[in-house]
Amino acid sequence: MTLTFAAPSADKHALEAGGDFTPRFDAHGLVTAVVTDVRDGELLMVAHMNAEALALTIETGIAHYYSRSRAKIWKKGETSGNLQTVAELRTDCDQDAVWLKVRVGGHDASCHTGRRSCFYRTVKETDGKAIVEIADDDRHFDPDSVYAS
Amino acid sequence: MTLTFAAPSADKHALEAGGDFTPRFDAHGLVTAVVTDVRDGELLMVAHMNAEALALTIETGIAHYYSRSRAKIWKKGETSGNLQTVAELRTDCDQDAVWLKVRVGGHDASCHTGRRSCFYRTVKETDGKAIVEIADDDRHFDPDSVYAS
Repeated sequence: MTLTFAAPSADKHALEAGGDFTPRFDAHGLVTAVVTDVRDGELLMVAHMNAEALALTIETGIAHYYSRSRAKIWKKGETSGNLQTVAELRTDCDQDAVWLKVRVGGHDASCHTGRRSCFYRTVKETDGKAIVEIADDDRHFDPDSVYAS
Repeated sequence: MTLTFAAPSADKHALEAGGDFTPRFDAHGLVTAVVTDVRDGELLMVAHMNAEALALTIETGIAHYYSRSRAKIWKKGETSGNLQTVAELRTDCDQDAVWLKVRVGGHDASCHTGRRSCFYRTVKETDGKAIVEIADDDRHFDPDSVYAS
């Protein structure tokens, strides 16, 4: 990794209108990453990136995240084969989030449950209670066999 | 606000496959909210919600967030008129993020800079430096006049 990021300006206007990408990492050194499919815009997942994951993603064109549960860099799809090739990377007005438009390899799935998207359930209110309903139950791979090793 | 949320299960399978919506709020009591336009899937913004914002959103059908900078509930568009009506609400596998598909009122803009989306810039690497380039500079409203008061 050779790419580094300058510290963000305290000036809101510089963040919103300047020419430098100066991500505003949070107290844990992370920015939010929103991942959509470049083919149709489907939201696939939300993850986090530290400076190293962001630099690796920009330099290699393959999405890398930071796994908070495992506390390490996570090359998405390294085990399942579902690598994400980045077609476009964007950032938002205050530079604390990034948007990756990707092409998904392998099984065309980004959720560890085998589904295309992690957002496979709708939220509803029924009788004063918040429930979830499955909107997409199509499994592109069997997690038990893919993650067995 | 009458809707409350049960504490999330420690069992991963229950979170992923159960029928209850039990959002996993972080240490600050927040979940990540990804907001897209239901018309074409364009990513409009990323924000955060606490339990109150989430309950208000579900109960009223109008997007409410939690403003970290102002430390209070934020009814999106209350000042600008760009209210977001929620067409569909989804959650992800581990229930720490929600996805709102919305119809935007007013100026059809969700960014405080007047643009349709907060993600109006692409990130690129040039000569070993990370830069941003404007991808969308169409202002739907003039922030100086809309937020003047």
